[in-house]
Amino acid sequence: MKSPIPDYLADVLDAVRGIEDGAPADYIDVLARADVSRLAVALATVDGEVYAVGDHDVEFSIQSISKPFAYALAIEDNGLDRVLERVGVEPSGNAFNELSLEAGSHRPMNPMINAGAIATHALVATPGASREARITRFVDVMSRLAGRPLSVDEAVFDAELRDGNRNMGLGYMLKAGGMLDCDPGEAVSGYIRQCSVNVNVRDLALMAATLANAGQQPQTGEPIFPASSVRQVLSVMTSCGMYDAAGDWITTVGIPAKSGVAGGIIGALPGQLGLAVFSPRLDGHGNSVRGVAVCERLSRDMGLHMMDVSQIGRSLVHVLEATLGGGARQDGEDVVPIYELRGAVRFGGAELLTRHLARDFGTSEGQDDGIGTYAGARAVILSLRHTHSLSDVAQRVLRENIRRLHDDGRDVVVIDPSGVLDLAPIEADKRPVAVDDDEAARHHVGGTHCRLVSSREPAD
Amino acid sequence: MKSPIPDYLADVLDAVRGIEDGAPADYIDVLARADVSRLAVALATVDGEVYAVGDHDVEFSIQSISKPFAYALAIEDNGLDRVLERVGVEPSGNAFNELSLEAGSHRPMNPMINAGAIATHALVATPGASREARITRFVDVMSRLAGRPLSVDEAVFDAELRDGNRNMGLGYMLKAGGMLDCDPGEAVSGYIRQCSVNVNVRDLALMAATLANAGQQPQTGEPIFPASSVRQVLSVMTSCGMYDAAGDWITTVGIPAKSGVAGGIIGALPGQLGLAVFSPRLDGHGNSVRGVAVCERLSRDMGLHMMDVSQIGRSLVHVLEATLGGGARQDGEDVVPIYELRGAVRFGGAELLTRHLARDFGTSEGQDDGIGTYAGARAVILSLRHTHSLSDVAQRVLRENIRRLHDDGRDVVVIDPSGVLDLAPIEADKRPVAVDDDEAARHHVGGTHCRLVSSREPAD
Amino acid sequence: MKSPIPDYLADVLDAVRGIEDGAPADYIDVLARADVSRLAVALATVDGEVYAVGDHDVEFSIQSISKPFAYALAIEDNGLDRVLERVGVEPSGNAFNELSLEAGSHRPMNPMINAGAIATHALVATPGASREARITRFVDVMSRLAGRPLSVDEAVFDAELRDGNRNMGLGYMLKAGGMLDCDPGEAVSGYIRQCSVNVNVRDLALMAATLANAGQQPQTGEPIFPASSVRQVLSVMTSCGMYDAAGDWITTVGIPAKSGVAGGIIGALPGQLGLAVFSPRLDGHGNSVRGVAVCERLSRDMGLHMMDVSQIGRSLVHVLEATLGGGARQDGEDVVPIYELRGAVRFGGAELLTRHLARDFGTSEGQDDGIGTYAGARAVILSLRHTHSLSDVAQRVLRENIRRLHDDGRDVVVIDPSGVLDLAPIEADKRPVAVDDDEAARHHVGGTHCRLVSSREPAD
Amino acid sequence: MKSPIPDYLADVLDAVRGIEDGAPADYIDVLARADVSRLAVALATVDGEVYAVGDHDVEFSIQSISKPFAYALAIEDNGLDRVLERVGVEPSGNAFNELSLEAGSHRPMNPMINAGAIATHALVATPGASREARITRFVDVMSRLAGRPLSVDEAVFDAELRDGNRNMGLGYMLKAGGMLDCDPGEAVSGYIRQCSVNVNVRDLALMAATLANAGQQPQTGEPIFPASSVRQVLSVMTSCGMYDAAGDWITTVGIPAKSGVAGGIIGALPGQLGLAVFSPRLDGHGNSVRGVAVCERLSRDMGLHMMDVSQIGRSLVHVLEATLGGGARQDGEDVVPIYELRGAVRFGGAELLTRHLARDFGTSEGQDDGIGTYAGARAVILSLRHTHSLSDVAQRVLRENIRRLHDDGRDVVVIDPSGVLDLAPIEADKRPVAVDDDEAARHHVGGTHCRLVSSREPAD
Repeated sequence: MKSPIPDYLADVLDAVRGIEDGAPADYIDVLARADVSRLAVALATVDGEVYAVGDHDVEFSIQSISKPFAYALAIEDNGLDRVLERVGVEPSGNAFNELSLEAGSHRPMNPMINAGAIATHALVATPGASREARITRFVDVMSRLAGRPLSVDEAVFDAELRDGNRNMGLGYMLKAGGMLDCDPGEAVSGYIRQCSVNVNVRDLALMAATLANAGQQPQTGEPIFPASSVRQVLSVMTSCGMYDAAGDWITTVGIPAKSGVAGGIIGALPGQLGLAVFSPRLDGHGNSVRGVAVCERLSRDMGLHMMDVSQIGRSLVHVLEATLGGGARQDGEDVVPIYELRGAVRFGGAELLTRHLARDFGTSEGQDDGIGTYAGARAVILSLRHTHSLSDVAQRVLRENIRRLHDDGRDVVVIDPSGVLDLAPIEADKRPVAVDDDEAARHHVGGTHCRLVSSREPAD
Repeated sequence: MKSPIPDYLADVLDAVRGIEDGAPADYIDVLARADVSRLAVALATVDGEVYAVGDHDVEFSIQSISKPFAYALAIEDNGLDRVLERVGVEPSGNAFNELSLEAGSHRPMNPMINAGAIATHALVATPGASREARITRFVDVMSRLAGRPLSVDEAVFDAELRDGNRNMGLGYMLKAGGMLDCDPGEAVSGYIRQCSVNVNVRDLALMAATLANAGQQPQTGEPIFPASSVRQVLSVMTSCGMYDAAGDWITTVGIPAKSGVAGGIIGALPGQLGLAVFSPRLDGHGNSVRGVAVCERLSRDMGLHMMDVSQIGRSLVHVLEATLGGGARQDGEDVVPIYELRGAVRFGGAELLTRHLARDFGTSEGQDDGIGTYAGARAVILSLRHTHSLSDVAQRVLRENIRRLHDDGRDVVVIDPSGVLDLAPIEADKRPVAVDDDEAARHHVGGTHCRLVSSREPAD
Repeated sequence: MKSPIPDYLADVLDAVRGIEDGAPADYIDVLARADVSRLAVALATVDGEVYAVGDHDVEFSIQSISKPFAYALAIEDNGLDRVLERVGVEPSGNAFNELSLEAGSHRPMNPMINAGAIATHALVATPGASREARITRFVDVMSRLAGRPLSVDEAVFDAELRDGNRNMGLGYMLKAGGMLDCDPGEAVSGYIRQCSVNVNVRDLALMAATLANAGQQPQTGEPIFPASSVRQVLSVMTSCGMYDAAGDWITTVGIPAKSGVAGGIIGALPGQLGLAVFSPRLDGHGNSVRGVAVCERLSRDMGLHMMDVSQIGRSLVHVLEATLGGGARQDGEDVVPIYELRGAVRFGGAELLTRHLARDFGTSEGQDDGIGTYAGARAVILSLRHTHSLSDVAQRVLRENIRRLHDDGRDVVVIDPSGVLDLAPIEADKRPVAVDDDEAARHHVGGTHCRLVSSREPAD
Repeated sequence: MKSPIPDYLADVLDAVRGIEDGAPADYIDVLARADVSRLAVALATVDGEVYAVGDHDVEFSIQSISKPFAYALAIEDNGLDRVLERVGVEPSGNAFNELSLEAGSHRPMNPMINAGAIATHALVATPGASREARITRFVDVMSRLAGRPLSVDEAVFDAELRDGNRNMGLGYMLKAGGMLDCDPGEAVSGYIRQCSVNVNVRDLALMAATLANAGQQPQTGEPIFPASSVRQVLSVMTSCGMYDAAGDWITTVGIPAKSGVAGGIIGALPGQLGLAVFSPRLDGHGNSVRGVAVCERLSRDMGLHMMDVSQIGRSLVHVLEATLGGGARQDGEDVVPIYELRGAVRFGGAELLTRHLARDFGTSEGQDDGIGTYAGARAVILSLRHTHSLSDVAQRVLRENIRRLHDDGRDVVVIDPSGVLDLAPIEADKRPVAVDDDEAARHHVGGTHCRLVSSREPAD
């Protein structure tokens, strides 16, 4: 069987091929000469599968799509606070090449407009680094993101530099406002070099997928950016990535994104996938016309909109019962409930478990629900066998539940073969007890047999 | 055991109680007189649990928090296209009470600023509806969202109306630009009345949770807004909900939100929860100072940031094998693979299944991976026993996979006791075969015994 | 002989009749229907002569040309300081119907844009005056300016009021900013009524000539506005009268001016003339296309540009000598110099006289020029026989010169048949001596014969 | 006698010495260190007299006061049209160091803001001139304006250049917009050098007086700028010279002006005088605080406001009669009227004469006034003995009057000893007859005796 996914993507490309609106960027000859028939799309999943169709091997200059990655590097090299002193995070409402400094401060509004991107570029690598050091660092990281060595297109660089007066203007303005430490000319030529790195949609899709994958390159597994940087980058892409069409994009496509003047667009859907499209004709905002059309269609067809609430992913809690002793169940005190948490547990799952526990072990005081089902049980088993992960808050809530059950005088045993629960002492010298399987758990609480008495749905 | 969640929320309130910055809105006496010591927070889950601590029963006027809900109503009553002719979706970069019309059109920039909210209010109920009809419709829906009858605070309404010159100015400007059908005075007084509905944090949390729950009220189960409207509303809240601090909010809190001048803030995290805070002192943007602090803390503590990639929720695919015939497995042709999809399956899960199928059933032609493991198998079982839901795209991909497997000459049987798969014919008269359990599936493919041969992890 | 001036004006109209660019205002039907072939020009001199050619009897609504006159009335009725609290004087750089409030204050930028004109209208007549009282006052003054009873065009008024949403919006915004005492609706409808007064170019030329004549109606001689108000009005017309084309107008036409949307334009050249043109087709700024062309041509042909330095009007000083006694002149001490000042003497003339006196009566101390020609003369005659007027500063300088000559011990006699010199005592009980003719002057200084010894040019 | 004018100026300085508001420019050390006690004023008349008091010999950098002069040079070297392609004439409403480009074009708004001044500087001297050539040309002209050799303050130049990032930013922006032909760095450093020329108030007053004197240096008599350039420069100074305080300045001071950041201000009142003040402390607009106060006081005391209508300077027409023949006057036909025009005659005077002629020589046809007083006279004498000058339009009107009198069959003789009337043939071979004195005029028209029969005032 052949996968239908490439066929689907090819269909999407065919559907937009008829769109002939827009024109390639014409401010430099090397972009103006672009073959406007070129069209490509690539999808990379967070586990590293890449689907690429159309002209997926054709290279083009990354241009402004470099901005979010340089921003991530600047955060890594300076810390977020220092970066925020130099570049803001608010949408400017203006075109990408406007100065758009914040009233009061002299900060450019955000790192996705040129002024902000120049200030950002100057923060890459160590303070006082040379232009070469900054570019070397940038190209190195971009190559690791793409999973192959990338390089600068010198023809594009030369042409952009010759035509770089507006960016030079921005650079000197930034310098005048105290937003640049280095020489403005050096910052601008470095920024232009950053924009001249050649990529194809496959590279871009992997870069986007790295953002979607919390900073870890999906294929190599290399942790390239910390999750906190990625969160910042994706947030800024959400509000500022598509220039003054940000609101339109967020309502119709709903994926954090960034476009480049050579015709590329990336989108990164947290936890799911990265996508990239390429087509040289641009609309009035500077975004690829067919690229936008592809993204709208993928978002609609594939339900990628981040506000699409149909994506509700509930963590499930199953409740089973084990009887203690070998005999038939005779009264409540012999029963040990088993609470099983499934999937990637975040606040929602932890809250749901807590709700069960609070009800089932409720005493009359202060509880609406009266005496709980297991008020008399002397032990509890938490099964994390099907729990893929616990978020920080889930971790804290679970540990707090264990502490409270202990305080009530109950034994708590956790079945945790993968070790997702933090076993650090909860208070003083009390450490959660974790075992590897049901048998061990039953043994621990003194039971000899485990049988499913009832599977209760969470909302009962 | 008592739930630790209310204790946690109380701790958060205690932590911000020391913040005494800001001041209540002072443009009308009834707001200026607010008791600034009031502080409350409420959390409502998408399955209807509400946690509320602090002054959760204290009522205050909803003010601008009414805007997203009126927007949802306007979309329902007019269709999105008609609403977009009258109100845009771009952040304005200006204060909430600026006119902020789009250059070219006369549309107010978005429905979260006053001008846009007045134009939106005028679109509630049928065209030509009276002011009373619009307000009746609005209060009725808000009451259903809150799960209790709400009403207008007449003292607030009277005071706001007396002080309503600026809004009247906006109203006449909108009329001049062709953005209002009704009388400007009527639109403005109706809008002011909309803002004067009294609520408490419990009400607001349920309203927000309804958005988070795709438009279905979590406690009553009533479908109040269609999912497509909710997606639009949440998108606009993301980019425009916190006025000119939108970029700051999205990076630090990362939850679609809306604030009101009486000191309320709501946040709605799609698929997870709604939250609401109340504290009357406002910052320079018009947002509750302590309210923002509570939201920042909740987001950080509870991992609620929508760009927090740690939320990666993978749909799992398990592969098992069943042997046909009663004997031991002897060669590939006797084996029927069982592909099990777990959880809420969206594109990611469907793609993962597809990847397995394409590899396992690959022939040499055009496949990188050479001959697949099950290239010789004559049947396939898809188990949806643990599949909670299939998104549209997942549905389409699964059906396309089945079609392709059929085309290869293979039997496909789906174990689907909950009926998540669409059984419409895939082509001509070919309809997927669905059975209720393993036994039936085995029977259907001619096997007599099913045993777990291996459980292969998705990324193998 | 027939005057060539009407012929010249007719030639100018003929020259622009071929221009068919622009279109009449179309926001109300009564303006849209205007007969676009109408064309008229009128010139009124500061002594009341009016030249009017073309459709000079056709009436049209005054529209924005009413603004400078309402501003003059507001200043008269409130004092300039109070008016400045409500309306600024800076060019807005924006279109006439923008709100254009000053940052910080809520003042509209100037009284020539609509927002400023509404605030200005509300300041006409006594505080708390009714709308009728304001309009009655305005129409009364406009009638006195035109020299005939004017009245409101009710059809225009009704249509403008029906279409007045934008102005209503401005009115409510002004009220919200504290810039209006009365009801916004009343201020706006009063303002619209002010704009609906019917006039012809003859009326407008006399209104403009009144401004050019320091506020005195040229034909009736009635002082309508004080000179200080007129100075303020003309200044604001200079910088703000032609909207966002102010800089272009000041460089090419160079006459304080105001245009109206019905196709009228007035220009007022201080001390010289008022002019008015009428042609309904407007350019993109809202100024009459042919009207602008006529004004450019008149300014160029007639040398009316206020920065045209060829207008240098030098006040002349003639120096004559009279000999005392009957005999031939024998030595310096018998000679009495006569200084004759001609024309309208302002600072320049007074300075020139002073320069002569300082040189001619200089002693060695502290004077660059050494001993002056008349250092020995015991008397001086100042002839003001040909002096038309003395400005305040000229008055002060002359009196100070007399004081200093007295202090040097010299007799000073002023020939002043028209009484232009202020005879108030200069110090203590010393009062300038003024006589009516040469004879009396000679008598006074003891001479018997006056003969022109030399006429010295000022720059000698 | 000592002139009271220096004493008056000294009094004005004393009056403002107590003002200690503001602070010297602090962006470069050499300005920040300025001696804030320095205070000077100078007045230069259009005939070259200079009054200078206070620290009139102290030199300071000319800074932005160089802008109007560079603008005049750019116009001379390129023509106005070419300059207007590069720099507009509208007030920007923004601070002097904003980019303020016009929407649509990329022209800076006007030559008085930095961006416009940089574009203007680059237009000085021939296209392709070197930076040195431009500066040499500029310093040479400024020296001729001051009447002494000026030079660049190298310390100021070096400091400004080091701090010149903002101007460099403007320069690159201009280059990007196609508003600069040369290298941006060269244009900016040249502009900074232009601003670093050292001057004192005496120099500045003469520069301003040259503008007031239609471009002719008052002391040397050298024609430095053509009158048309001066008109353009003064117009732009009127609307843009005092930055965003232009409207305030024009209403309170009313003199075309320009200020510089070192504390200088110049004012040029067309046809009257140039003035200059110096005091280093600046207000928020960048204008010298005491300098503004001095200018306000001078304008008020000396009646210098250009909209001050008290300046009405009427050209006078006197009418005398001469009798022909030796006998007593017997009837109208023997009388020859003599029309005498006095002063600098512009349109007003010519119009007044025309009005007299049209009335006095009117026949019944088409004349309101019926048969004129001199309808029977066969000759007319025009006396220009006291006419200082005729403007172009006055020239044309006089010649047209002569033509029409000729057409009526009358002899016209002009007494014109100074030759102010253009004697070119009026039509075909008819040339005005001009004589030198009354005797010759009488002789020409056949009379033998001239006596003053009546002197009629113009408005009779």
